[in-house]
Amino acid sequence: MSDPRARKVSQAALMSTADETEASFYEAMQQGDLDKMMAVWADDEEIACVHPGGPRVVGTVAVRAAFEAVFVNGPVHVQVHHVRRMESAVCAVHHVTEKVQAMTERGMETAYVIATNVFLRTAMGWRMVAHHASAGLPQDLPDITEPRTTLH
Amino acid sequence: MSDPRARKVSQAALMSTADETEASFYEAMQQGDLDKMMAVWADDEEIACVHPGGPRVVGTVAVRAAFEAVFVNGPVHVQVHHVRRMESAVCAVHHVTEKVQAMTERGMETAYVIATNVFLRTAMGWRMVAHHASAGLPQDLPDITEPRTTLH
Repeated sequence: MSDPRARKVSQAALMSTADETEASFYEAMQQGDLDKMMAVWADDEEIACVHPGGPRVVGTVAVRAAFEAVFVNGPVHVQVHHVRRMESAVCAVHHVTEKVQAMTERGMETAYVIATNVFLRTAMGWRMVAHHASAGLPQDLPDITEPRTTLH
Repeated sequence: MSDPRARKVSQAALMSTADETEASFYEAMQQGDLDKMMAVWADDEEIACVHPGGPRVVGTVAVRAAFEAVFVNGPVHVQVHHVRRMESAVCAVHHVTEKVQAMTERGMETAYVIATNVFLRTAMGWRMVAHHASAGLPQDLPDITEPRTTLH
């Protein structure tokens, strides 16, 4: 077993870009690793997380409790598609589509979740400050980047 | 009628805080004013908007078309509740609950929408770069800010 303090330093050192922090977020989901998940987030009482179809969860204590409840069922089978990035020197807004698979009474089901992840550059590296995920859709809706056809 | 150029300058001058920009966003919704709406957004091909239950709409042309489609039905009866703010010198993340009312075949219906609004400070003032709204809920769910009761 590695020294947990060394592990924490190692994780912080790795989060030198928003992309690395986002990768850690999804690895923590895939591994059901609560400590790794919370190392991704800024330590701030105004961080906020909206799970698909759920309420808004605010602050480190409540966000930790919410992920603990998710991980009770084990790791989350999530893959990231379509990352779009809007980044400045200290702030990054990423738009991702998550492919989530879960075993249900009807067998393995797949849902596509549209999520917005926001990161700020802190003294501890890039940290997540917001994760907002919409309720899953049965299909992977393409982004709309061209105007839709109108009637006139 | 006022000179539209003067109006545009006036709007930019007003957006000296993220709060002012957010107020303009909801006023544009309430007035069904497409030009006012687009003055709120950063002029960037990576701005992104997710309307409740909808796909991700990316870039100024597509975002404009999406709001045009919304405003075809007239102004949106929306009121903002519970603004939470996480702000730095150049980036602001606001978490709001929107109370949206619409006339349907079943009469006036109310839905509560959880939305995340992200603003960046630009040379043109604070501009919206992302609006992510979850599908409406029939009730105003309170934010979870304390850990939920667990079984152990």
